[in-house]
Amino acid sequence: MVIHGGKVVTSGHTIQAWIGVKDGKIVALGSNESWPEAKQTINATGKYVLPGIVDPENHPCSPLDEGLRRETAVVIADGVTTAGMMSHSSRITVRDAKPLRAADVPTFAEVYPEFIKAGNQNSMVDFFLSPQMQTEEHAKEIPDLAERLGVTSFKLYLHLKSGEHVWDVWAAFMQSAGAFYYDDGMIYRAMKNIAALGPPAILCLHCENWEIARVLKEELVAQGRRDMAAWSDHSPAFCEAGHVRNYAYYAKVTGCPIYIQHTTTRETLAEIVKARAEGVKVTAQCAPHYLTVTKEKGWINTPLRSGEDFESLWEALRTGVINCIGSDYWWVRFTREEVAEQRKGTESPEFNVWTDPSPSFCGSAGFLLPVMLSEGVNKGRISLERLVEVCCENTARSFGLYPKKGAISIGSDADFVIVDLNKSKRLTPDMVHIGTGFSIFEGSELKGWPVMTILRGNVMVEWPEGAPGPKVVGQPIGQYLPRKPGHELYPLDQPQ
Amino acid sequence: MVIHGGKVVTSGHTIQAWIGVKDGKIVALGSNESWPEAKQTINATGKYVLPGIVDPENHPCSPLDEGLRRETAVVIADGVTTAGMMSHSSRITVRDAKPLRAADVPTFAEVYPEFIKAGNQNSMVDFFLSPQMQTEEHAKEIPDLAERLGVTSFKLYLHLKSGEHVWDVWAAFMQSAGAFYYDDGMIYRAMKNIAALGPPAILCLHCENWEIARVLKEELVAQGRRDMAAWSDHSPAFCEAGHVRNYAYYAKVTGCPIYIQHTTTRETLAEIVKARAEGVKVTAQCAPHYLTVTKEKGWINTPLRSGEDFESLWEALRTGVINCIGSDYWWVRFTREEVAEQRKGTESPEFNVWTDPSPSFCGSAGFLLPVMLSEGVNKGRISLERLVEVCCENTARSFGLYPKKGAISIGSDADFVIVDLNKSKRLTPDMVHIGTGFSIFEGSELKGWPVMTILRGNVMVEWPEGAPGPKVVGQPIGQYLPRKPGHELYPLDQPQ
Amino acid sequence: MVIHGGKVVTSGHTIQAWIGVKDGKIVALGSNESWPEAKQTINATGKYVLPGIVDPENHPCSPLDEGLRRETAVVIADGVTTAGMMSHSSRITVRDAKPLRAADVPTFAEVYPEFIKAGNQNSMVDFFLSPQMQTEEHAKEIPDLAERLGVTSFKLYLHLKSGEHVWDVWAAFMQSAGAFYYDDGMIYRAMKNIAALGPPAILCLHCENWEIARVLKEELVAQGRRDMAAWSDHSPAFCEAGHVRNYAYYAKVTGCPIYIQHTTTRETLAEIVKARAEGVKVTAQCAPHYLTVTKEKGWINTPLRSGEDFESLWEALRTGVINCIGSDYWWVRFTREEVAEQRKGTESPEFNVWTDPSPSFCGSAGFLLPVMLSEGVNKGRISLERLVEVCCENTARSFGLYPKKGAISIGSDADFVIVDLNKSKRLTPDMVHIGTGFSIFEGSELKGWPVMTILRGNVMVEWPEGAPGPKVVGQPIGQYLPRKPGHELYPLDQPQ
Amino acid sequence: MVIHGGKVVTSGHTIQAWIGVKDGKIVALGSNESWPEAKQTINATGKYVLPGIVDPENHPCSPLDEGLRRETAVVIADGVTTAGMMSHSSRITVRDAKPLRAADVPTFAEVYPEFIKAGNQNSMVDFFLSPQMQTEEHAKEIPDLAERLGVTSFKLYLHLKSGEHVWDVWAAFMQSAGAFYYDDGMIYRAMKNIAALGPPAILCLHCENWEIARVLKEELVAQGRRDMAAWSDHSPAFCEAGHVRNYAYYAKVTGCPIYIQHTTTRETLAEIVKARAEGVKVTAQCAPHYLTVTKEKGWINTPLRSGEDFESLWEALRTGVINCIGSDYWWVRFTREEVAEQRKGTESPEFNVWTDPSPSFCGSAGFLLPVMLSEGVNKGRISLERLVEVCCENTARSFGLYPKKGAISIGSDADFVIVDLNKSKRLTPDMVHIGTGFSIFEGSELKGWPVMTILRGNVMVEWPEGAPGPKVVGQPIGQYLPRKPGHELYPLDQPQ
Repeated sequence: MVIHGGKVVTSGHTIQAWIGVKDGKIVALGSNESWPEAKQTINATGKYVLPGIVDPENHPCSPLDEGLRRETAVVIADGVTTAGMMSHSSRITVRDAKPLRAADVPTFAEVYPEFIKAGNQNSMVDFFLSPQMQTEEHAKEIPDLAERLGVTSFKLYLHLKSGEHVWDVWAAFMQSAGAFYYDDGMIYRAMKNIAALGPPAILCLHCENWEIARVLKEELVAQGRRDMAAWSDHSPAFCEAGHVRNYAYYAKVTGCPIYIQHTTTRETLAEIVKARAEGVKVTAQCAPHYLTVTKEKGWINTPLRSGEDFESLWEALRTGVINCIGSDYWWVRFTREEVAEQRKGTESPEFNVWTDPSPSFCGSAGFLLPVMLSEGVNKGRISLERLVEVCCENTARSFGLYPKKGAISIGSDADFVIVDLNKSKRLTPDMVHIGTGFSIFEGSELKGWPVMTILRGNVMVEWPEGAPGPKVVGQPIGQYLPRKPGHELYPLDQPQ
Repeated sequence: MVIHGGKVVTSGHTIQAWIGVKDGKIVALGSNESWPEAKQTINATGKYVLPGIVDPENHPCSPLDEGLRRETAVVIADGVTTAGMMSHSSRITVRDAKPLRAADVPTFAEVYPEFIKAGNQNSMVDFFLSPQMQTEEHAKEIPDLAERLGVTSFKLYLHLKSGEHVWDVWAAFMQSAGAFYYDDGMIYRAMKNIAALGPPAILCLHCENWEIARVLKEELVAQGRRDMAAWSDHSPAFCEAGHVRNYAYYAKVTGCPIYIQHTTTRETLAEIVKARAEGVKVTAQCAPHYLTVTKEKGWINTPLRSGEDFESLWEALRTGVINCIGSDYWWVRFTREEVAEQRKGTESPEFNVWTDPSPSFCGSAGFLLPVMLSEGVNKGRISLERLVEVCCENTARSFGLYPKKGAISIGSDADFVIVDLNKSKRLTPDMVHIGTGFSIFEGSELKGWPVMTILRGNVMVEWPEGAPGPKVVGQPIGQYLPRKPGHELYPLDQPQ
Repeated sequence: MVIHGGKVVTSGHTIQAWIGVKDGKIVALGSNESWPEAKQTINATGKYVLPGIVDPENHPCSPLDEGLRRETAVVIADGVTTAGMMSHSSRITVRDAKPLRAADVPTFAEVYPEFIKAGNQNSMVDFFLSPQMQTEEHAKEIPDLAERLGVTSFKLYLHLKSGEHVWDVWAAFMQSAGAFYYDDGMIYRAMKNIAALGPPAILCLHCENWEIARVLKEELVAQGRRDMAAWSDHSPAFCEAGHVRNYAYYAKVTGCPIYIQHTTTRETLAEIVKARAEGVKVTAQCAPHYLTVTKEKGWINTPLRSGEDFESLWEALRTGVINCIGSDYWWVRFTREEVAEQRKGTESPEFNVWTDPSPSFCGSAGFLLPVMLSEGVNKGRISLERLVEVCCENTARSFGLYPKKGAISIGSDADFVIVDLNKSKRLTPDMVHIGTGFSIFEGSELKGWPVMTILRGNVMVEWPEGAPGPKVVGQPIGQYLPRKPGHELYPLDQPQ
Repeated sequence: MVIHGGKVVTSGHTIQAWIGVKDGKIVALGSNESWPEAKQTINATGKYVLPGIVDPENHPCSPLDEGLRRETAVVIADGVTTAGMMSHSSRITVRDAKPLRAADVPTFAEVYPEFIKAGNQNSMVDFFLSPQMQTEEHAKEIPDLAERLGVTSFKLYLHLKSGEHVWDVWAAFMQSAGAFYYDDGMIYRAMKNIAALGPPAILCLHCENWEIARVLKEELVAQGRRDMAAWSDHSPAFCEAGHVRNYAYYAKVTGCPIYIQHTTTRETLAEIVKARAEGVKVTAQCAPHYLTVTKEKGWINTPLRSGEDFESLWEALRTGVINCIGSDYWWVRFTREEVAEQRKGTESPEFNVWTDPSPSFCGSAGFLLPVMLSEGVNKGRISLERLVEVCCENTARSFGLYPKKGAISIGSDADFVIVDLNKSKRLTPDMVHIGTGFSIFEGSELKGWPVMTILRGNVMVEWPEGAPGPKVVGQPIGQYLPRKPGHELYPLDQPQ
């Protein structure tokens, strides 16, 4: 395969080049004057060729057969070719949601083989795994997961560490998900185990102090608040920043690199720069919805914010304080009809954010790239080169996959997303691949869209000129990506 | 009463003055040339007259009758005339130690009236109360305790906040003490309630992350460690400093003044100065044993340290980073025979710090003042004026009692301790008033001793020239000290 | 002398007491019920008795005979009984203002004896000396001045360190004042010498980067700015804070305590707290005019500010970030007629702040105390106890005079200012003792005034009920106050 | 030209690839299985192909004809293909060293055209210019130099800002170099002008407070110190770190990116991280000699250090606190015979570091790359990928030349250095191209050497297998590199 005529954006710069692909890998790059013949030639003239997006925050929710296929179709349609999948161990293979006892939460060693097998059969994107640890056993199995399964990234839902003490809203979900109590001792143990692995091992932290949010909610309820924005107000900036400050300290003590999953406020930015100045290795992620959508428009964890911090977040993304972008993809299990009903409900005077179901948990699912292109690049807030750093290279580096993923370079996987910066389209329900037909960005006029996605040399998605939207044309050829503990860079010259 | 001939140390300076006392209060001060006649004249020539010591950390352990009398006799013999008593609500009136259910932990409103009554009958020292809060209800009753009982200081045993998750060593004790789980939400609620009271309200924090200590202990046990020093090693500097960092943040958010109960390491000093630079009102306490006794000599919470930080702590005390000294007085319930047996045990090859009983929990009980005089003043580490600030004035200020207590000033209570800086004596078991006949300082040759203690004009303790030690000569005239919410300074001109 | 009936404010608290005075010292204090007879009895009922104000920033400008008497009469009328006098060596004994060569700047050892003699003859207040060092020789003579003359405080006019490079506006003045170039080497040498003296030695810093102000002025002139506020705009907050940051660093390196002479902005407050968190001993002074007067009302160095920071400064004064208050007293040499003319000029469209003479350099001369009482205490921004700390005790401590000065305590000098918190009066030109008849506070309605000032037992100033203002009734009995190097507290028991 | 068989290191990763070159640019990259035919084929099997080194700190010292050619021959032999040349304006075209008056220091606009012309005729490497500003005029001409000559980097010798006040050792040199007094106003003006240019404009700072060094030297001389190490001791860590702290503050105020030319101590590292945490854009450079040579071995400004900080500096280089490496190349004008004599002198008991001439000012001239390969990569302190970042990519980015320089990418200049990581050789005088035959690294056994250097497709230097050292085979084809103000990335698609 040869892709020619486009501008290739990689490694922080843009080149005028054609790309030669063989056996799923990039084998040649050349200046755009002439290019070799190939079985398949793609003309990218007037467009930009980016490495396939690496989205580190994808929460698979469906059964592992057709469900996984449907979910990952949405992912690939967004230009994402590599997804970091994050799950509770209990949600991976369990098909129903009946209550679980703490002692019955499985280890990841027990459930990951089945997940990997299913993914290798049904996923439309390559994937790696970041276990959402919830028990002391999860902290203990870290070395084993790294060695046997190539798992080097791990996650903590810090908001759920108090288990039943903060169940409140989602008691049923949390009990079935295995969200039981764990403590700083478990976290310390995890940090020490991760630090001992060496690069690229990293601990992802969802920072949000729900113990305090519990009390703030009580106050808001007492004030009669049940509007959408109350969701954000019950878990304000300091609940996020407080966790960052606290756990960055233990990261310093243990030497464990940490990854702040959601950087949504200036308070959090302040804690991140302070931690770095103390020598803590902190990587910071933001999501498109935290950069663009206000708290009156939906509810999700970490919550959407008031909009006052948007420009500070964009600046942090531009200057390197924020390093990565993730979608926080969730597949919401409601039907289109149910969601339509729910949305009507939000308009109702009876609406109650504390009890009504929310369709907005889908995060930036399906539209990470167009939002970043439209609101970021085309509005002059970040350069296209910076977009590639935060959506591809840095993410691949942070999770031990660079330069196999995240770069357009000789020997890298031939994963591309071809982008038309001038294509403009209003986001409408019919474009929304996700089952529920809802996106938090719905109604936005976005300029800048992916028009073709290629995974290891296979065209997976096309958006032909004139078509109403992207069309998934590929097969579920996604593969599990074990990482190489001890290798900061993915060693392309080792047997894969 | 007139005390003459001595050097009077108060308000950060020393004056040559006689003191006139009437009705338990100071009514006159004059230069030492001549003094009025009085019924009782005390010649303090060659000695220093200090305000009675204010010890903010006293844990009453005995029944509230003769037991309280015996305990406070030890206190007054140390030159302490005002004790801040800290208890679990469940330990105050409950005479036995049978297991308690979380729901049965009483409020302080329920138990304090009885305690105050008993104290007014049996205490040898004036006393105020700092509830050791353990439940959401305790955080909620703060405004009520302040208004009705004049309680303005509150305490959190942060090491016990995880309840049964860290019971381990002391399961029986903790269950009977009511040490059940509470969370950051409860702490946040307490901080907001305390902040709302205004000065002098303050939150005392025992900072020690036992969730992590739990894991470190597991590691030490696995290494075969069971020596005395292992107790310190399982709860190292960062467990203390980590809590300071974390809760200073929420103190900033809520505007709540905090009081670090035990400042034992340089790491903690660093967090305290950082918090102050951010505008948090942080008061820091140290104890004599943290300034002088190494971890091989005993075990207590917060643990003794290795000695490397001693000079840093003295410097911090001298320069104002540390503000107050407290004894962490505990009455250990063992008999002299039991303790003698235990101490033999510590020499045994079978000694196991994790399971053997410890007599060292008495803290600096009974010897706060001589240790500070000997190791501090007479060794040139702090001036006598600074000793009075950290042992009297600052403590009285921090807890809303200044200038009623903590000063030698017109209108202040006539509480004094007369000190002979040249008296030298080895601390021997026969001097130890505490029932068990054990002190962590035993065997030390100390120079500088209190030779007379006066409470509101009543001579309570005397150590006549030539006598082997101090003798308690007073009656239990101690009174409860309700404080005045909203008054940073204790308003002497209001009805008491 | 006995003063009775008043409330005595000292050492951070207020007592109901009478005060007995003998031989210029306080010899007795007693509760207000009864008091001894005395030759002179002063009834302070309904009023507050404060220690005499200690003003550390007084710039004597007149000849050392009647001129000094006139200047200090203004000082004592303000309730100030002790003045820290700061001068260039070249301005002390030189009566004319002819140009000076750098090499001819005298040492302080050469000029101080004459000044001290003159002061002992003509000063209405006790005084100590802080040399305004300008040459390498000044840095070198520090140990000698300390030993022989009891000088322990030293000052740097950092804005003038570039000498002729920043003369511009005041070339003639600066050349005659000896404001020639000196550098960080000289400053480093001074800091090391001061650090070596030990307490109470201290270096006062006028922080204001005039090298940058030079450029900003150029920009403002180019924009056509010549209004009063332009003076502040050409030396903005960062010029002050930048110097604090820079020289606090070298203070840390050398272990030299520093005293920030003018703390006028939030930026400076931020640098001060950061320096303290690094262990630098920083004392911070503010002046009444920086707390109350905006930049449109006058010009002075450091400049007046926009008013945005006023409440932050008051808060810093309340919470201890700012420690002291000084007046920055200057005797402006203009006549009343000249000043009247100048003030008309400021209304003129031709007014040019860069070239016109300024009467506002008098600082808070004469009205430090009423402004602090009115705007601080009576408006609830600071307590009267805090006023005494920042205007008396802390200043006396900072400059090595406590408790001889700054306290109402047995053995202290009998310096008092009796204050009527309810007296209200508009500040009019006829009240202004300073020769020019101008005050920056003119026209303000102030509530809270000193009604009597006593220096070592001598009534110096009275404001009888009904009189239009204070009347100086005392003689020039002021004495030079040599300090005691090596004594953090002034040793009252040593021969004076 | 085709280079094949090697491992290509670029953009933070290593690829197995051949490189195709045409018209001086890279036109193709391909996997190593097969490569096109070419006129010139270079077999790099077993070796690494790096982008040509970008050395930002080169001080041309010779006349601009043959002299420049000789100097740059040393540069290219080191694997450096792009040099940032830094000079005083007065040293550029002036051939003799007679004293200069301050007013006669030329602007760079006056002297640069001639320099550029000479460089285009005589330089063996491509070059860009960083003016060493010394006058107010230099600060003012910044916009003009940027627009007309593509100058976007500027430098301040902060140690010389005090002009004659610190001349002392080098009075003759400094007077002839135009090192006259300038001040913070000039620096502020420069910072504002640079900030206004936008990326990639940057201000390079030589941080070393010679005003203080002046005093410390006086102390050392008084102690009889005249050994080599005294040079470092008279300008210790705090003189460097103090400047960083101070000027980083004004960089924050003005928004000017700064580049710390010499990061040689932990104190400086601490200031850099603090400045970054405050949002200052700080780039930090180190030099090979600061990472490996102790102060007893030579003298240079900034001085060599004691060796205690070496591992901290390597760690900082590894983790990103330090971003770039530069050589601080100086051509010392002595002959080989003179230098031999000088070196004997350093062994003599009469040696006097304050007055004897120093040959060590050559910095890392000629051996930047082998030292970094040997001491860095082959000793496991940094990866080869990191070496390329700090020696090529980051430097090119910092100075506005990336990706034209600093990358092996389509469209980039065909500048390469081929490296044999296994070649081991002791550095002997006969290898030293620099005229004086002296290197500070002399005698070191180094492993890892450049064996071929290529500039825009022209082989400039070869070190054939078996030859005793590198041989310069190319012609002086070096070109001046104007940069593109406003372009953070060098715009390859614009007319060059």
